[in-house]
Amino acid sequence: MARPSPPSRSAYPVFTRLATRWDDNDIYGHLNNTVHYKLFDTAVNGWLLDAGLLDPLAGDTIFLVVETGCSYFSELTYPQAVDVGMRVARLGRTSVQYDIGLFAADTQTVAAAQGRFVHVNVDRVTRTPAPLSDTARVTFETLIQDT
Amino acid sequence: MARPSPPSRSAYPVFTRLATRWDDNDIYGHLNNTVHYKLFDTAVNGWLLDAGLLDPLAGDTIFLVVETGCSYFSELTYPQAVDVGMRVARLGRTSVQYDIGLFAADTQTVAAAQGRFVHVNVDRVTRTPAPLSDTARVTFETLIQDT
Amino acid sequence: MARPSPPSRSAYPVFTRLATRWDDNDIYGHLNNTVHYKLFDTAVNGWLLDAGLLDPLAGDTIFLVVETGCSYFSELTYPQAVDVGMRVARLGRTSVQYDIGLFAADTQTVAAAQGRFVHVNVDRVTRTPAPLSDTARVTFETLIQDT
Amino acid sequence: MARPSPPSRSAYPVFTRLATRWDDNDIYGHLNNTVHYKLFDTAVNGWLLDAGLLDPLAGDTIFLVVETGCSYFSELTYPQAVDVGMRVARLGRTSVQYDIGLFAADTQTVAAAQGRFVHVNVDRVTRTPAPLSDTARVTFETLIQDT
Repeated sequence: MARPSPPSRSAYPVFTRLATRWDDNDIYGHLNNTVHYKLFDTAVNGWLLDAGLLDPLAGDTIFLVVETGCSYFSELTYPQAVDVGMRVARLGRTSVQYDIGLFAADTQTVAAAQGRFVHVNVDRVTRTPAPLSDTARVTFETLIQDT
Repeated sequence: MARPSPPSRSAYPVFTRLATRWDDNDIYGHLNNTVHYKLFDTAVNGWLLDAGLLDPLAGDTIFLVVETGCSYFSELTYPQAVDVGMRVARLGRTSVQYDIGLFAADTQTVAAAQGRFVHVNVDRVTRTPAPLSDTARVTFETLIQDT
Repeated sequence: MARPSPPSRSAYPVFTRLATRWDDNDIYGHLNNTVHYKLFDTAVNGWLLDAGLLDPLAGDTIFLVVETGCSYFSELTYPQAVDVGMRVARLGRTSVQYDIGLFAADTQTVAAAQGRFVHVNVDRVTRTPAPLSDTARVTFETLIQDT
Repeated sequence: MARPSPPSRSAYPVFTRLATRWDDNDIYGHLNNTVHYKLFDTAVNGWLLDAGLLDPLAGDTIFLVVETGCSYFSELTYPQAVDVGMRVARLGRTSVQYDIGLFAADTQTVAAAQGRFVHVNVDRVTRTPAPLSDTARVTFETLIQDT
């Protein structure tokens, strides 16, 4: 099956460093494949919160996940921290796709895993898609990067 | 972005029923997007264990995850149990791709989410790809289904 | 250190059967110690939902956890399901303490772990303790059992 | 029910700062009660790894959890990081009890939660208790603190 090549750190304009946890390591002694998605979710929502684009308890709109994916290139292992690189790969009218790279903190220059994460902006109550605000759009554009 | 249509139960030859958990529901009151992958992992490995194709602690080979993905169509929510449908979508020399459908137990006939899960058979020690045994191949073929 | 003896199934008036998950097994090949608490949380809240005593999104009051504990007597391991036994050990004006036993489904008659789980009934908005309703009290009393 | 008072930071000789995750927040918008135990497990094992007292894959002995507990005093919430304070509360022949305090990073001087975590040193193969080595004992003693 065709597999992407692991990207380097230069593919991502911003990074978040996240701790791993003892129970992230599964019976094979490495981060279970589901943990990568917890890191994606945490880095993306953390960036949205920092940027003032998300108020999960009181905002008129929230972001729901409609599509995710991950290619695993090499193992990540607790207790090593992970640098999570992010860029905006695609900006739609109501949605945004992030490309994400996971790197062992300090040591890895080539990604251990590459993720895809698609958020749709929805009305909190009806949960129907809502256009991204101009503010959101301008902020997301700062994460777009040619690769 | 092009999105797949939610498959129906008839797309899957086997099903596993799994309980959801209180802490699966996130701040939005539904299964967090990472939980779907826990259900994939559990259903696939459970089937492998039942079929006698996996001994995680002592087998010469183990299955490592190299690619996963999920399209989310509708919400799943604790306390509802989930029926996890599985089929083998592609059988390679050393790898196997599963397509997976998640359905709210009893009530849903159209999938709430559709997953893709690729396992590579590797040597336990060297973790290099190893050909699937004839026994494994024959067993996996029972999960192939035209859709 | 003084340790309780593992209780038998007869110590619990009600049971819930819960599935375990692949990623519940940690690097030592057994259920990580934190998973036991997920099972407690799931069984207790599931019972409350079934009994009509909890509406997490719209009730005037909710139950918050103020104290938990667990004694581990023997290993539990995915893929085995777990029977979660529950009884009410103490019923206060605003709080309820559950004693919980975890047993490997079908096979174990003596608990693999014993838990303690204390819920306080609080006002949803102010999160200050609120008296249990008479209905709640009568329902909780059905879970009291001499041991 | 008698409840301990929340300890202050001065009760703990060492601290580890850990990130929280999006999916740590449950339907009530705060860290689910099970997450506290993940932080305990991670801080304790991380300290053991740093101190050279644990090799989970190859050591002759490993540490298994036999008893845990937590008192919850106030909410912790993603995206706030958590400072995990640790001390050794009791050092037995084959076991060690840690007392743990969780504090919202930077802001909290009084613990949001207090944990108890008991490890038994066991033979990797037989999983029967084994005496702590002199080296381990001396190292653990550096974490004892009058309170």
